[in-house]
Amino acid sequence: MSSDYETDRASVQVVVENEATGRVKDIYKEIQETLGIDFVPNMYKALAGNPDYLEMTWNKVQMVMGEDGKLGRKTKDIVALTVSIMSGCEYCTRVYNEAAKHAGLDDAALLELYEVIDLYSGLNRLNIGLQTKMDEKPWHGCGGG
Amino acid sequence: MSSDYETDRASVQVVVENEATGRVKDIYKEIQETLGIDFVPNMYKALAGNPDYLEMTWNKVQMVMGEDGKLGRKTKDIVALTVSIMSGCEYCTRVYNEAAKHAGLDDAALLELYEVIDLYSGLNRLNIGLQTKMDEKPWHGCGGG
Amino acid sequence: MSSDYETDRASVQVVVENEATGRVKDIYKEIQETLGIDFVPNMYKALAGNPDYLEMTWNKVQMVMGEDGKLGRKTKDIVALTVSIMSGCEYCTRVYNEAAKHAGLDDAALLELYEVIDLYSGLNRLNIGLQTKMDEKPWHGCGGG
Amino acid sequence: MSSDYETDRASVQVVVENEATGRVKDIYKEIQETLGIDFVPNMYKALAGNPDYLEMTWNKVQMVMGEDGKLGRKTKDIVALTVSIMSGCEYCTRVYNEAAKHAGLDDAALLELYEVIDLYSGLNRLNIGLQTKMDEKPWHGCGGG
Amino acid sequence: MSSDYETDRASVQVVVENEATGRVKDIYKEIQETLGIDFVPNMYKALAGNPDYLEMTWNKVQMVMGEDGKLGRKTKDIVALTVSIMSGCEYCTRVYNEAAKHAGLDDAALLELYEVIDLYSGLNRLNIGLQTKMDEKPWHGCGGG
Amino acid sequence: MSSDYETDRASVQVVVENEATGRVKDIYKEIQETLGIDFVPNMYKALAGNPDYLEMTWNKVQMVMGEDGKLGRKTKDIVALTVSIMSGCEYCTRVYNEAAKHAGLDDAALLELYEVIDLYSGLNRLNIGLQTKMDEKPWHGCGGG
Repeated sequence: MSSDYETDRASVQVVVENEATGRVKDIYKEIQETLGIDFVPNMYKALAGNPDYLEMTWNKVQMVMGEDGKLGRKTKDIVALTVSIMSGCEYCTRVYNEAAKHAGLDDAALLELYEVIDLYSGLNRLNIGLQTKMDEKPWHGCGGG
Repeated sequence: MSSDYETDRASVQVVVENEATGRVKDIYKEIQETLGIDFVPNMYKALAGNPDYLEMTWNKVQMVMGEDGKLGRKTKDIVALTVSIMSGCEYCTRVYNEAAKHAGLDDAALLELYEVIDLYSGLNRLNIGLQTKMDEKPWHGCGGG
Repeated sequence: MSSDYETDRASVQVVVENEATGRVKDIYKEIQETLGIDFVPNMYKALAGNPDYLEMTWNKVQMVMGEDGKLGRKTKDIVALTVSIMSGCEYCTRVYNEAAKHAGLDDAALLELYEVIDLYSGLNRLNIGLQTKMDEKPWHGCGGG
Repeated sequence: MSSDYETDRASVQVVVENEATGRVKDIYKEIQETLGIDFVPNMYKALAGNPDYLEMTWNKVQMVMGEDGKLGRKTKDIVALTVSIMSGCEYCTRVYNEAAKHAGLDDAALLELYEVIDLYSGLNRLNIGLQTKMDEKPWHGCGGG
Repeated sequence: MSSDYETDRASVQVVVENEATGRVKDIYKEIQETLGIDFVPNMYKALAGNPDYLEMTWNKVQMVMGEDGKLGRKTKDIVALTVSIMSGCEYCTRVYNEAAKHAGLDDAALLELYEVIDLYSGLNRLNIGLQTKMDEKPWHGCGGG
Repeated sequence: MSSDYETDRASVQVVVENEATGRVKDIYKEIQETLGIDFVPNMYKALAGNPDYLEMTWNKVQMVMGEDGKLGRKTKDIVALTVSIMSGCEYCTRVYNEAAKHAGLDDAALLELYEVIDLYSGLNRLNIGLQTKMDEKPWHGCGGG
């Protein structure tokens, strides 16, 4: 037997789609159109309690991710997933894992990504433990290069 | 006035280049040739106290980073830097920042990378705070796409 | 079909309320009275295997949180929630989100808190990535003030 | 003897004050006026390579921190410092420690803040280790309340 | 009602036991024999998409953990659990909690371990907050000698 | 040229040894005697602004670390160092690295410790990325038995 408290745990009330009005409704519409989905992700619905913040967040996502720039969108999606894994955010890891697949990464590519994250998570912590001193000259991080 | 203790802080003795013998000497040579540098980075010199571990670590770096695979070496360098920043390892951030420059990222590209890390570090923590529930259907992480 | 192993995951046996005796029973009673609840939180029940540690922990909570001091209890509750979100502890985020509501934060106030956490989680990681040098003179962190 | 590489470590070139032009120059002026200082913090000078991003970041800081809202500016400064300590960002811990002092926290108040961070960093990790199960009913986090 | 998306969340396809062939089948057999279990843990099944990586990972585990060395296997199991708790990995905390029990830690010993983790997680964050300066001379960390 | 602000960064005023009075003086004396040193570590001097908190912290350290219990003091010192490395606290890594040496770990033993931390930091992040599902039955973490 599980109580309501155990299972229902959102921190704040969300604004559901059919209750959105005004600016929130407009942003919800833009989110769905831009992402090509017929619902508003729970993350954005939680922000809608403060329409200014919802708008700024959506605009920041668009600005940072919406243009190719020098890195390219696919690389940015890979970075977004890496950051989510390093932050330990389950919701985000889930979402950006989908995004990475959508950007063209198959299971072999995803596994490569996890290998790099495994390698450097280990080496990073190793260097923190070793209190490694800065080298006197620069070098380029890894082999084969 | 600062004492020796304050300034000299490596956790273990390193094996310096001209004292390396046998297998360690061979690996040191391979590291310098592969990386195209005339010294051995402090990280590897600290591992040389256990030659098996030095060898396995170097082989792992070569295996994970040395071949292009599906992601490509440049993308892997970007992920290595991202992981280092998320781990808070100064030595590693320094080294892989150099590696990213060596891989062709100029200041504008690096700034783009930091923007993505800023954006998702914020959103990740936001979703952890919001205890955002998993959406009922998948979506693809960000705008524009 | 899920096995017992998959679902039952507490790390140590807890001491349930009606099996508590002696000092543990007394502390359980004090916890319930102080917190105004008719049960003992699972966290404390897990510590009861070592009564000295249970007592010291409860006393530390009382000492740090139980008096208003210079910060005030509400501010301390906000800090407790912030720390929990930054640590990525789900149980704690849940509990201190309730505590923050109990201390008078409505959804608008909670959202403000998450905004600040979002902002500085992003800026912190940005500065770690940028390896920002210390400024030559102090400044006061943010605008408007 | 320390080389240039060892000591000079900014990740990207900064735009110094007297080389700023156009929009960057305007934002630099606004930053100095708003913060009441006669220099531009290194963080913002590093972002100036992308004027859009500099502007958006400064606007976000103003929006999130510049108005009192429900939490009040002082509480937000405390949260900013807490987030910085939890992220392990030295530059930010330094800056927001100054900000907290500027907001009126004396050493006794700062120590109270560190006590709360100490307490919950410990309890958070304890609950992660214990794999504490969610309680069946809500409670309010701490004693005295 | 919960959708497939909500509940089924592995990031990549796993190679199940009875579909394993060649080298993967051999490693699966070795894993089961070495660990004394009649199944392959999900972690290894996820790595099998890249047999080289599966093999290297298994070999690294064997090399680092499989011999007693100077620390002893039990101590290494305790460190593995500590690292898992500090990383916030639920799967790993679960697995290495079992490993610690298997290595002979009863509930009282586990609780002692969590106490040490609680203590130093708190003190660590306290020193990060305090920006504690390095002492002029070394000392040995804690009381009692 | 570096300004005072750049170099002098303690967050709060410390109480130096020869200015300590009353209870603080007594605790300082006990700390020096117990640790066998002729100075008070900077960490404790920073806490002395709140004598109650200084006393409780010192007592907690003594209680958790001062007795052998089931784990033994040497194992606890190893855990303290592991936690410090995982938290990314430089001061603490430094201090507990000394403590581990004092407890009898030579460079080979320390390197073994860093290997275990490297291994599991990598595997932990790998499992977080893989969103590895809980296994249906327990297993014991690593190879070799």
